[in-house]
Amino acid sequence: MNHRWWLDPCKPVDTLALEQAAARQQQLTKPAGSLGRLESVAVQLAGLQGQLKPSLDRLWIAIFAGDHGVVAEGVSAFPQEVTGQMLLNFVSGGAAISVLARQLEASLDVVDLGTVTPSLDLPGVRHLHLGPGTANFVQGPAMTLDQGEQALQAGRDSVMRAVASGTQLFIGGEMGIGNTTAASALACALLDCPAAHLVGPGTGLDAAGVSRKAQVIERALALHGAQGNDPLQTLFNLGGFEIAALTGAYLACAQQGIAVLVDGFICSVAALVAVRLNPECRPWLLFGHRGAEPGHKHVLETLGAEPLLDLGLRLGEGSGAALAVPLLRLACDLHGQMATFAEAAVADRPA
Amino acid sequence: MNHRWWLDPCKPVDTLALEQAAARQQQLTKPAGSLGRLESVAVQLAGLQGQLKPSLDRLWIAIFAGDHGVVAEGVSAFPQEVTGQMLLNFVSGGAAISVLARQLEASLDVVDLGTVTPSLDLPGVRHLHLGPGTANFVQGPAMTLDQGEQALQAGRDSVMRAVASGTQLFIGGEMGIGNTTAASALACALLDCPAAHLVGPGTGLDAAGVSRKAQVIERALALHGAQGNDPLQTLFNLGGFEIAALTGAYLACAQQGIAVLVDGFICSVAALVAVRLNPECRPWLLFGHRGAEPGHKHVLETLGAEPLLDLGLRLGEGSGAALAVPLLRLACDLHGQMATFAEAAVADRPA
Repeated sequence: MNHRWWLDPCKPVDTLALEQAAARQQQLTKPAGSLGRLESVAVQLAGLQGQLKPSLDRLWIAIFAGDHGVVAEGVSAFPQEVTGQMLLNFVSGGAAISVLARQLEASLDVVDLGTVTPSLDLPGVRHLHLGPGTANFVQGPAMTLDQGEQALQAGRDSVMRAVASGTQLFIGGEMGIGNTTAASALACALLDCPAAHLVGPGTGLDAAGVSRKAQVIERALALHGAQGNDPLQTLFNLGGFEIAALTGAYLACAQQGIAVLVDGFICSVAALVAVRLNPECRPWLLFGHRGAEPGHKHVLETLGAEPLLDLGLRLGEGSGAALAVPLLRLACDLHGQMATFAEAAVADRPA
Repeated sequence: MNHRWWLDPCKPVDTLALEQAAARQQQLTKPAGSLGRLESVAVQLAGLQGQLKPSLDRLWIAIFAGDHGVVAEGVSAFPQEVTGQMLLNFVSGGAAISVLARQLEASLDVVDLGTVTPSLDLPGVRHLHLGPGTANFVQGPAMTLDQGEQALQAGRDSVMRAVASGTQLFIGGEMGIGNTTAASALACALLDCPAAHLVGPGTGLDAAGVSRKAQVIERALALHGAQGNDPLQTLFNLGGFEIAALTGAYLACAQQGIAVLVDGFICSVAALVAVRLNPECRPWLLFGHRGAEPGHKHVLETLGAEPLLDLGLRLGEGSGAALAVPLLRLACDLHGQMATFAEAAVADRPA
């Protein structure tokens, strides 16, 4: 793969639709600004969809799963086999994101990029077998150039399926025991900050576990050196297959003109990589929630992102973004269906 | 009306269902606690509904409208006729809460307690004509004892209609030009704090307007004296018809065993009155959002309430509570439909 597709231009925002939508918001029968964030997201979606009244009926949720060699360093509360077991749970309908996808009438696209159970062959899961998880990044790069580019492409492939099905909003989710460690290492390298500033309990480490995790990340940062201004190499050195797939998916969405709702910490780190690779993608990224993992705050600040929800979530799987979907849909409904002062013969405040 | 029904006992929470629901949350295929606030609200709803797996299919939204004599003091950005005009907008489907009720498949019960347009006779609106709005409370009590008790009863009547329709969640909304002034005055009296601590722009006052509003409230507080330990008389002195109706509705819900989702500042002040009148009602009150009006923060703190959303809303009409309904519904879906570790054959973390 010689063509670096992720650097191709992103679709521009439709500024005329944006302005018309902003003007409409001023005419609706409510005090100006009284719907707060719901007004700005409706206007943003109008600009992204290029229409005065945006809608989000067709929703695509892609779950990218992969295992992490760094788990050998003892950085997770759960055993590594859980990644593969959860793949079965996703397609069987018992996982959180399965329940949410069903309730939201979303398409659920489950992609296994490579786990410690390479023999897995589950109906409904796309098994890509890039490797039995990444390599342990305290000893060398997490993935090869070839694996990394295949993972980016896997994200793009999911987006192309979403485009074919008429998707109006894309959510990427992730599953991978150990992936808060990979995401934290990646964020530390990109933000040039020490591990202690970003590291948290992930799925449930105690204080000693968090301390060990920070030490593991410091060793990895020392090994790979300062490469924060080469985001692609940093991604391949410290990331995970599923994180690279998310990065590729976000960039493909921006190129194809599909709005993205970013999930929690790990997804936000993937979004940070995407923005560093191709800053034009930024307007296409909305943020679903502020997660409990402490590093999320720093990444969101760097991205200038204001998530919709703050509910102490730390599950992953795209669940926090999925939970924010009804708010976006209702924002569109309010924007599209409320009466104007003129239509309802309601007196506006004096200008 | 001699019987002070609002002091009757509230329904007790089902502690067995609460404990069973909490135990179930620990068995679902996710790291313990990783769904944050959604876990605690699902458990709370289990306790309120007395069943392991609560549901919120049937939703009732009551909008209580009334005008305010204190508007004569120049405390609102909008003309007073808007209260009546919005009643038509509610039943015509063009108001924010009309759109939300439609999307959420809620019953919408619109109750006009008394506006400056007493001739209003709108199909779909219950006109109670308690008076042409309240009296100006800088000159005397906002309402008579008889008006106040009728307003409380109007709230209860709406709840009894909700019970008859099998409602599982009650939202009260309000409409009344000037009602942030009444709510602020009431909160100042109940919290024993100066107006400057609580007063905000409401639907859109400028700084001079906010200052004038604070002075008006200080005059009212001086006139009516310290009666914070008589919440009923304070409500009748400083409140509004719609605020009294909300108070009555919340108390009736707690007595009838229907969970309440409280909206923004004005509704939270009505909830504070309800809790002061009959503290047993507190467990039945969930809080939808943290509004933009500065006084809301103080009232929520006093109630020990943690709202689900924080989106800079300041519309009223029950809109912020309605926007939080999908989160509660999804919390119930996740709680009820996710697989357990045993069912999905997923390894839990070592105990």
